[in-house]
Amino acid sequence: MTLPMTVPAPGLPARVRIHEVGPRDGLQNEKALVPAAIKAEFIHRLAEAGLTTIEATSFVHPKWVPQLADAEELMRLIDDVDARLPVLVPNERGLDRALALGAREIAVFASATESFAKANLNRTVDGALEMFEPVVAKAKDAGVAVRGYLSMCFGDPWEGPVPISQTVSVSRRLLDMGCDEISLGDTIGVATPGHVRELLATLNEAGIADDRLAVHFHDTYGQALANTLTALQHGVTTVDASAGGLGGCPYAKSATGNLATEDLVWMLDGLGIETGVDIGRLTAASVWMARHLGRPSPSRTVRALSQKET
Amino acid sequence: MTLPMTVPAPGLPARVRIHEVGPRDGLQNEKALVPAAIKAEFIHRLAEAGLTTIEATSFVHPKWVPQLADAEELMRLIDDVDARLPVLVPNERGLDRALALGAREIAVFASATESFAKANLNRTVDGALEMFEPVVAKAKDAGVAVRGYLSMCFGDPWEGPVPISQTVSVSRRLLDMGCDEISLGDTIGVATPGHVRELLATLNEAGIADDRLAVHFHDTYGQALANTLTALQHGVTTVDASAGGLGGCPYAKSATGNLATEDLVWMLDGLGIETGVDIGRLTAASVWMARHLGRPSPSRTVRALSQKET
Repeated sequence: MTLPMTVPAPGLPARVRIHEVGPRDGLQNEKALVPAAIKAEFIHRLAEAGLTTIEATSFVHPKWVPQLADAEELMRLIDDVDARLPVLVPNERGLDRALALGAREIAVFASATESFAKANLNRTVDGALEMFEPVVAKAKDAGVAVRGYLSMCFGDPWEGPVPISQTVSVSRRLLDMGCDEISLGDTIGVATPGHVRELLATLNEAGIADDRLAVHFHDTYGQALANTLTALQHGVTTVDASAGGLGGCPYAKSATGNLATEDLVWMLDGLGIETGVDIGRLTAASVWMARHLGRPSPSRTVRALSQKET
Repeated sequence: MTLPMTVPAPGLPARVRIHEVGPRDGLQNEKALVPAAIKAEFIHRLAEAGLTTIEATSFVHPKWVPQLADAEELMRLIDDVDARLPVLVPNERGLDRALALGAREIAVFASATESFAKANLNRTVDGALEMFEPVVAKAKDAGVAVRGYLSMCFGDPWEGPVPISQTVSVSRRLLDMGCDEISLGDTIGVATPGHVRELLATLNEAGIADDRLAVHFHDTYGQALANTLTALQHGVTTVDASAGGLGGCPYAKSATGNLATEDLVWMLDGLGIETGVDIGRLTAASVWMARHLGRPSPSRTVRALSQKET
């Protein structure tokens, strides 16, 4: 198998933790309804490929996300997986369901903009934070780690460019409420490296250290990996990515998917940055899932490596 | 139209010259034979979008590259274009044809590896350099600028990783022969940022300054833009790219195309780096060409912007 030559660069972390979002964020955005048994097999394969954090599912009401309506069944099928398996919860009821099934990590999802808070949660930014406050408190009481997703950190389809101060302010409130980590989402993929660097620097100035931050880039304009490199150069060591680029469609005019985990691992392997991930096994897992979805992976690395292997 | 927020970053050039390779390198790798009139219209549109260097065609024997067999006709159709219009020439006969049609810039194409020199030119690395020596000398005598393309600078499909010393050595010989600029090609797309940085640093140590260098990345593994950012951080200010990602196929399992010019301009616009290019007009030109080719552009920026516009 073709692999990159390993040549480290100065000023980069020795190790990066990949927060794999394919089974949740990826499959949530696929049209196909994937059976729980297939999802469970996929999560097993991702863990066997060396991923240590795999976001498994969401305890949102099935009416809103029918793709993940099988959360209970799935949790039982993956209780032997040797990885951190965070799940998304929208409210106390979702948290109770997740805790009852043994979830040890949860994530809540806030918005940096009023327009998206309204569209996604039918609430104001403040209203959403108030909704999450008791959820986070109860999770912390139960000894469960909490991640705060923050959408629209760079731009918003209704509001345009998002002021950095606005993203910093909501990040601060999520941390103050008890979140252990903030995942900074470029939900519409408009970020560029200077913007990434400036946001991270401003978060640092506001007292939020890089080790409380993760980056979550979308490849809508092809910028996800360059932005990720910028975040690593800044000092961030947790990166969200989606195996096989799940959630982006290779045939849609606009591929709005997450950064593909394989494209990320290719770069990190080349830089000699440890992830624990075996890119061959990861690619095989993504090819396997792409077959179930009946379409090729949008990840360039998956396409290149699977062409050579088959 | 959605545009990135402009946030500069330190340590980057104020201006980048894009060496547009779509009409030559891009169309050469498309299956479709595009009529000269369409190519000419495309080049006019690219110049109107603000591109100042547009590689127009190749004076290689039509037997080898039937896609560009109309070089003479095309040159006459674009003699009013207000841009630098380099053309590829393989030998003295090609040079004579190009000069007779008024070419003011040419490019020769060498290989950093023996395997690719053999496959592409049916010569050894030395044999190819010897073939180009009189071409470069004659071009310089005619006051014509010469670019040296160097393929397989990072990895080679037959030989694997290419030693940096080998790439540096052939670069040195191309410059010594009279080339004004070397375009460092990652022909199979395997480079990663540490490798890019190390090659550039080693070239500098060998006395080759960044202003004699251009970078030419392929997106086979999704690394092209991150590698380009690394080259800009190092000090390179000339970047090769292909409008609409021409030459890469969105349906092939492996998209081996060049970096898409639009994805590059999106990043440079976001960083406030001047290129003179209007991304809207450039995208419109690529969408227009994609219609002639009967398939969507593989550029993520083109797909995202054209979805919003139409």
